[in-house]
Amino acid sequence: MGQELTILKLGGSVITIKAQPYTANSEAIKRLAGEIHRANIKPLIIVHGGGSYGHPTAAKYRIKEGYKEPSQAMGFSETHQAMVALNKMVLDALIREEVPAVTVQPSAFILTDKGRIRSMETDVILTLLELGITPVLYGDVVLDSTLGFTILSGDQLVSSLAIKLGADRIIMGIDVDGLYTADPKVDPSARLIPHLTPQELRSLQQKIEEVQVTDVTGGMLGKILELMPAVMQGIKAIIVNASKPNNLYRVLKGRKVPGTIIEASENVA
Amino acid sequence: MGQELTILKLGGSVITIKAQPYTANSEAIKRLAGEIHRANIKPLIIVHGGGSYGHPTAAKYRIKEGYKEPSQAMGFSETHQAMVALNKMVLDALIREEVPAVTVQPSAFILTDKGRIRSMETDVILTLLELGITPVLYGDVVLDSTLGFTILSGDQLVSSLAIKLGADRIIMGIDVDGLYTADPKVDPSARLIPHLTPQELRSLQQKIEEVQVTDVTGGMLGKILELMPAVMQGIKAIIVNASKPNNLYRVLKGRKVPGTIIEASENVA
Repeated sequence: MGQELTILKLGGSVITIKAQPYTANSEAIKRLAGEIHRANIKPLIIVHGGGSYGHPTAAKYRIKEGYKEPSQAMGFSETHQAMVALNKMVLDALIREEVPAVTVQPSAFILTDKGRIRSMETDVILTLLELGITPVLYGDVVLDSTLGFTILSGDQLVSSLAIKLGADRIIMGIDVDGLYTADPKVDPSARLIPHLTPQELRSLQQKIEEVQVTDVTGGMLGKILELMPAVMQGIKAIIVNASKPNNLYRVLKGRKVPGTIIEASENVA
Repeated sequence: MGQELTILKLGGSVITIKAQPYTANSEAIKRLAGEIHRANIKPLIIVHGGGSYGHPTAAKYRIKEGYKEPSQAMGFSETHQAMVALNKMVLDALIREEVPAVTVQPSAFILTDKGRIRSMETDVILTLLELGITPVLYGDVVLDSTLGFTILSGDQLVSSLAIKLGADRIIMGIDVDGLYTADPKVDPSARLIPHLTPQELRSLQQKIEEVQVTDVTGGMLGKILELMPAVMQGIKAIIVNASKPNNLYRVLKGRKVPGTIIEASENVA
């Protein structure tokens, strides 16, 4: 790439209102587009989640489990179209802020097998970056060689793109400050973990699995485990609260913000 | 494919109001989605043009001529986003009519060289068809190995898809009845040509080129020449007025409507 590539994930919980189906957080989208414009970081790839757009329709038609019956074709169509609607809002906001960004529809060029990426040509993404354009991808419904179709999460996409394109860092913009010892939304004793190595993550995971089945970190552990293959290749992952104004701007500019840094090296910056 | 594949082009002049920039013909889109639903033809691929959505921004930034300066990145982004807006209206209308349709963004998987398609993986399109889903593509801005980027017309896309996937027929839905001896919108003596072979087309082309530089047929000749490689492979091309209610429905169902049929065989049905 020449310059250091950043892959930015905008969490579905940040850009939509999770409790209200098909409701975007238009203010957050506008603010984040402004922060991305001000930071002016290139090369940059943006991946966003589905939040309250993707999940309701996907769940209704059981898209993730794969193709079972012809009536699901309509569900595949509707789930994709819900993501298109959300993605269009993100792109409209970026373009309004004069960020040259172009969507690269994941389902148009990525195929999975049993839910894992099997083929992903990166020619288009690389050429866009060379032209100074920011590619924007999103968690999507995709075709799957075993299941017929399934869901490809934005998190898997982030990790795969980071590895395939040799990214320098991954920034995960979520709606809490980082990885906690428990779910900070329900447990007041939850403590933020500022720094984590893959070794520490593994022991944390074992401790959690010994105690209970559900993910006490409020779903964060699953997201982070998805990033581990990238972290093991030396890519730094920074988890930051993008719901708080200016946090994303600051982390894009390389400044320190409260959050969780996950990296393989023991040398903490 | 097993069954006979139809590739349907919805002209930009049918689904937008050409004289008004960024204005969709919402009524036409709704009506055509209804006709496609009623005809219930599978396998079907839909390709639509840009009309007053794609052309103004593309012209403003001279996208077709290729990458010349960094400021065009914004133009590439905006032109694509204009097509996304139009495409979303088409898909929303199809989904409202319970047609399981999914967009396959051309620029996400097609690369051109000097404006001609250089690579186009059809795995996604074929798998969608197998699942009973109608892929929808459109004329788009695309990355080009010589020019940096350019415009890929819906007509070139139709012809390439037809050849690559072995289509049975191409239906071109436009805003006049077919190919005329002159532009029917300005010349009252213009006569509709109901049937044409490639040989007849070539002599017509020569006659036109002898007389004057501009395309007297009102731009139709260029569109038809783009289809000739497909016609030469035995694919029938039917040009029909999709602005007239029920024409598209009837032609999808294999019925005769006024129009122009172009086919290589001398045996006229």
